[in-house]
Parts: sequence; structure tokens; C-alpha cells
Amino acid sequence: MISYETSQNMISLLGLGDVRSERIFLTHALGRILAEDIVADSDYPSHPTSAMDGYAILHSDQEAYESLEILGDNPAGADEVGGVMSGACIKTFTGSLMPKGADTLIPIENVRVEGSVIIIEKPVPNGFAVRPVGESYREGEVLIAKGTKLGFAQIGVLAGINRVMVHVAQRPRVAIIATGSEILDIGEVARHAGQIRSSNSYTLQALANQLGAQSVQMGIVGDDKAAIMERFEEAIHSCDIVVSTGGVSVGDYDFVKHIVPKLGAEVIFKGVNIKPGQHVMVAQRGSKFIVSLPGFAYSSTVTFILYAAPLIARMLGVENPYDVIEATLKVPFAKRSNKSEFTACNLTFEEGRYWVDFEGKKTGSSAILTNLLGDAGLMICGEEDGDLEAGTLVRVIKL
Amino acid sequence: MISYETSQNMISLLGLGDVRSERIFLTHALGRILAEDIVADSDYPSHPTSAMDGYAILHSDQEAYESLEILGDNPAGADEVGGVMSGACIKTFTGSLMPKGADTLIPIENVRVEGSVIIIEKPVPNGFAVRPVGESYREGEVLIAKGTKLGFAQIGVLAGINRVMVHVAQRPRVAIIATGSEILDIGEVARHAGQIRSSNSYTLQALANQLGAQSVQMGIVGDDKAAIMERFEEAIHSCDIVVSTGGVSVGDYDFVKHIVPKLGAEVIFKGVNIKPGQHVMVAQRGSKFIVSLPGFAYSSTVTFILYAAPLIARMLGVENPYDVIEATLKVPFAKRSNKSEFTACNLTFEEGRYWVDFEGKKTGSSAILTNLLGDAGLMICGEEDGDLEAGTLVRVIKL
Repeated sequence: MISYETSQNMISLLGLGDVRSERIFLTHALGRILAEDIVADSDYPSHPTSAMDGYAILHSDQEAYESLEILGDNPAGADEVGGVMSGACIKTFTGSLMPKGADTLIPIENVRVEGSVIIIEKPVPNGFAVRPVGESYREGEVLIAKGTKLGFAQIGVLAGINRVMVHVAQRPRVAIIATGSEILDIGEVARHAGQIRSSNSYTLQALANQLGAQSVQMGIVGDDKAAIMERFEEAIHSCDIVVSTGGVSVGDYDFVKHIVPKLGAEVIFKGVNIKPGQHVMVAQRGSKFIVSLPGFAYSSTVTFILYAAPLIARMLGVENPYDVIEATLKVPFAKRSNKSEFTACNLTFEEGRYWVDFEGKKTGSSAILTNLLGDAGLMICGEEDGDLEAGTLVRVIKL
Repeated sequence: MISYETSQNMISLLGLGDVRSERIFLTHALGRILAEDIVADSDYPSHPTSAMDGYAILHSDQEAYESLEILGDNPAGADEVGGVMSGACIKTFTGSLMPKGADTLIPIENVRVEGSVIIIEKPVPNGFAVRPVGESYREGEVLIAKGTKLGFAQIGVLAGINRVMVHVAQRPRVAIIATGSEILDIGEVARHAGQIRSSNSYTLQALANQLGAQSVQMGIVGDDKAAIMERFEEAIHSCDIVVSTGGVSVGDYDFVKHIVPKLGAEVIFKGVNIKPGQHVMVAQRGSKFIVSLPGFAYSSTVTFILYAAPLIARMLGVENPYDVIEATLKVPFAKRSNKSEFTACNLTFEEGRYWVDFEGKKTGSSAILTNLLGDAGLMICGEEDGDLEAGTLVRVIKL
């Protein structure tokens, strides 16, 4: 068995090719990963613009004149803006272009209007309430870098530069196959107590979708070699990553581990010194990847996060699918093995720091998916780690 | 003008009625808000189940016998499981029900098989590798509470209890209206320099969608009283929350602030001592809410976060739309007003703490949306705060 660190290095060294991109409408781009640098094609604003409601004036006129004649008004969006000469002003509103000749905006609140003139009661500094050319950005500035996940601010900035269509990374297609004769799909009627309701397919679909992939449910296939082989072939043919659960352990009916090499796939590794999920297997056939996970719910979830998520992220042009943060143990932790352990924990933020505890978390087999409910993280302990005292700084995968 | 704190209290006191729910398919439920408590309707597992591949035995037989006779095997999902008596064992695989009479699973790695018997080379404790009844959860246990956002683990747990349909909160409908004769929609050809490309509608749509609302684009309406009135009526009629941008300041063409009361809406407040966005207005007509925001891009975004987001969250049965965290100022901060200020900052996590700095952030008008790009947060300064020194603990809205 290789170490966790070695397995992660091997994953990061896999050649995934270039990020594949597509053009989509801006209103569909929320949450997608940008596949191009967004560069400003002009200064913004491109002209001096009023930042308040008031009167466009020459700054020096505040001292030079008792009152300034109102030449007219300049609503936002007006085509003709006019000009201001010494001794005069133009009423100018938020978002309006500044009239030629004016350098300063005196706010409405600072003047008294008498007939057709204004009297300035509270002068302002030169350039007051005028947005200078390029206040927001300059032509040629990289506004949003390739690889950025598009959030509300990115969407707004793209709209502001009139980008109707955006280049984003294509969503990798992730096939999900559950193997095991005991697995019963949701909605199906149980025939006897030996059947287990499928949760893996739905947990992994949700994870894949959250990470930006497109999941393809390939259903459940029983412990039958020919059927497994056929389903894998179909999945490899249609998808970029094939994720399977079950069939990788040491049991007589664990066929997946034997079938994957027979599909002509090269096994990158099989077996990692981790808990849970030591039997995980990663293989490659051409540009396609097969990630075969154990069948227990907690094991399959954790190993998906450790091995399928980085592949999805890299296909999208994203470096890391999850943040790994430092947190402080609130309670002692008893390490149970000499493996790298990934333990479900409560992750809370108090007094400016993240804290880890295990209240409500059950110890037992790797089947306990409920341990990942709530504000859960995955605490990482290294192979060499022993028991940890309260107060120890630990690394946690933020989910 | 009321204070920020008063405005937030007023928002939290608005009567929004009960959360409205709907039933949706589990595979559409990712990211939705649960509108019911999910209670386990049976113990899980319901029978003792094997957690490894091995042989089901009586624990006491490990000492009592030299070898144990293999009675047969028990693949996962088998209907008939059989029973084990003293001196015998049944080969049993991960996920299989334990045969009657057996209390312990001896793993394959711990035995030597000789013909039709096993010889135990490394004994295990009583109950080893057996998942007891209720290991994951007990009948009647609340697994997921109402108001929880459904993530991958919740989806998996719901699948595991065979919940095909789930009760979730209906997505509130949020109408978005941009007002201003200067506003040009994306894709439209500019006729002159006085026009401003719309970003607000798209920023706010993305925010609303991220928060779990359903956004309805009502388009751009010029500074025309009758047109604004008509568009607002249509929006109120069809949506739960109407968000508008522009028209609330002190300019001659700021019609929204006059029109909202004429629609028969009760103004909850108009004007809050905040920066940016002091002219924000919140009104109510029956069960509908109108949130009128300023027109500048940064102002409208911040005030949406402060005033529209809590309404959306509460309609979904969620307490807070955003986390407010403590962070440490890396650099001094010069406060510019005696208002509550919301300043775009870089929020980083290093050495176990969150840090705030303003590198790359531009000072200037409230039009600078690009300040919210990157890993941005909104630093909150109170009315009473003055300039802040580096090292000060500040509160930040995590976006």
C-alpha cells in the first residue's frame, strides 16, 4: 500500500490535457469556472461622471463669484451635455456625464437656489463628487482571471463590460455506478432485510454537482462480472470520469478490482494507507479515468472527496476542490490506526478561530454517513500521528 | 435617518408569515432548504450486519475449538442467511446480514483455510466487525432539522431512508427592476457616451439565486413616472419581493421614492445612516415587500445584501443569509464618515485566523463594483467607530 501523500502526488501528476471550454450566456454562468482572462477593453468610466446630485461648476468659481447662473439641467442618460463657463453652472445628477468645462460637483445640499442662480453655502474641494476617467478600471486591466469561479460580483462586472457570452470550462461528465447485489435503489420495494438502500449514488451525484461536474447516473449493477464489465464500458464511452462504489475489497464477490484492468485501463494505484477507504483504486484508459471506491457510505464519500474531486477540479482549471484549514482541537483525539485518518468532525468558528470537536459523532464502522451532517469537516491525521491532546492545531478539509 | 441597527431590527420584526413549502424530487433538492424535520422511521442498520469480509463465528469458539467448519457462504444481499452453531462458521461479506447465532466476524486476513475448515490465527474481541442494530441511527431520531440547507450528506441520508420526495421551502420570487434613463441593457448598442451599461440587474439576480430565491428580471425602465408605476404594479402582482435600483436619492428625476407610497405600500423606513446606500427604502404592501436600492453598483449590491437578503432568508426559514465573522486588520483603516460603513476588503485565512486588508481595493465613489471581486468580504464599522489601527478585531460579512 502506498501512503496518502504518494497517492495525492500521483493524482496531481496525471496528465489531464487542456481545460475544454464552451461559450454560454452570462445569465447561466453563475458558479461556472471562467476559461479566459477578462480584460477591460476601455477605461471605466470613459468620461468624467457625476457621483451625486448637484451642480457642475468650476472649482475656482466658488471664491470668484457670489452666485452662479444655472444654464440648464443634465439628467443622467442625456445625449447632449453642454458646457459650463466661468460664472455659470449646470444642474447635474448622479450618473450623468460632467458638462465640458466643469471640474467639480457642488451637491444640492451645499447650495441655496434663488431664481435662476445658486449661492454656494458650503464649498467643496476641487474635483468633488466627480468620478474620474478609469476610477473603476483602466483599459487593458485584467479584471477577472481564468480559473475564477463566477460569483455575483464577477457576473455584475461582466455585465458592465457588455459580455453577453462568456467562455467557461465545460463541466466534466462523471458517471456514477453502484455495484453490489444487496443495493436497492430509492423508490424500490424491499423484498428482504438483506437489501441495503442506495445512498452512495445520490451522495456522490450531489458532490459531483457541487464541484461543477455533470453527473450521469448509471444505476446499480449486481455482483455479476459480465454486467459490471458492460456497464463500465458504457460509462467510459460516454463520460470523462467513471466513479464506482463497491467491489474493491477482499471478498469473493469483489469483482470491480479484477474487471478494471481487463477493460484495458492502467491501474495508477490500488490500495492506500488511509482510513476509511484503504481499498480505493484509480485507473486510466486513454483520456478517461476510473475511480473505484469502497461500498460503505462514509468510505465512498471520503474517497470521492480525496480522489475524484481533484480530478474534477483540475478538468475545470481549478487548483483545489476544497480548502484545507487549520483548526484547534477542543477535546483529545484517540487515533485508532497507523494509517492517515480522515475523521468527520464538527467545525465551528468562535473567537476568531476554527475549532474541532466530535460531539454527536458516532464511532463504529465506515458506514455511518450521518457523521457528515451538520457543519462537518474532515480532520486529517497523518500516518505518524498518535493520540492528539486538546489544543492541538489540526488540518481540516472544509466541506 | 435611522441607524443601521434600528433598520436591521425593523427588518427582523417584519411579519413574513409561515414558510411556504413544496414537494420536490430528491435529485433536485441539492442546495434547497428543508421545510420538515427528517425523522428516522427505523433503526439503521435494522439487523446486525457485517462490516468486513470474513467468517461469522461465536466469539467463545475462538478458544474452544482448534478449527471451525465452514457451513457455506453468505454474500451481501442474500435472502437466506442461515445460522451458525458452536464449532462452525459461515463465510460472510461486507454489508451482509450476520447469520443467526454468530456474534463476531473474524476477518479473512486472520484465518487460514484448510479444506472445509478455518483455523483462527489471530483472534478478535467479541462483536468485532459487526455493525450493531442502530449503529448509524435509531428510530425516532431527528436526522436533519427543518431549515437545513441540503448538501451532499443530507441528500445521501435522505436516499438511505428512501425519501424520493422531500418537503423544501418554496423559492421566494424576487422581481428585479432597474430604473434610470441612462441604463443600457447588455447586448444593446450604445448610442452615446451618457449611457451606462446595466450591471445591477445581473449582480442582484446572481445574489438572489445564490440565496435560494427565484429571480424575475423585470428589465429597465426609464425615468418616467407612469412607466415606473406600471412596472412596479406588475412586479408586486407576480413576486414576493420587488427589488429596484435607482430613483431614491435627492435628484429631480428620482421618482421611485415618490411612487412607492403611491402604490399603497407602507414605507417601513427610508434613509439609513450607512455608507454606501443611505437612501435605501423598504416598504410593504400586504404580504409583498419592496426594497428600493440606490443606483450605483457598489451601493445597490451592499444594500441588497443588508436588506433584501434577510427577507429572502427568512422566507426560506433560514435565520441569517450570511455569516458575520471576526477578523484581524492587517493595516490601519481610515474611517471616512460618522455612518455605519461597509467596506469591501480582502478576506484571507492564514495562521488559523481571518485577516483583512485592502490591497488592490480602490477608494472613490460607490460605483466601484470591481472592489467586490476576488475573496472579498464586507468589513463593518459602527457609527461610533473612528480610525482603526492594524491588529484591531473587526466584524466582516463573509460573502
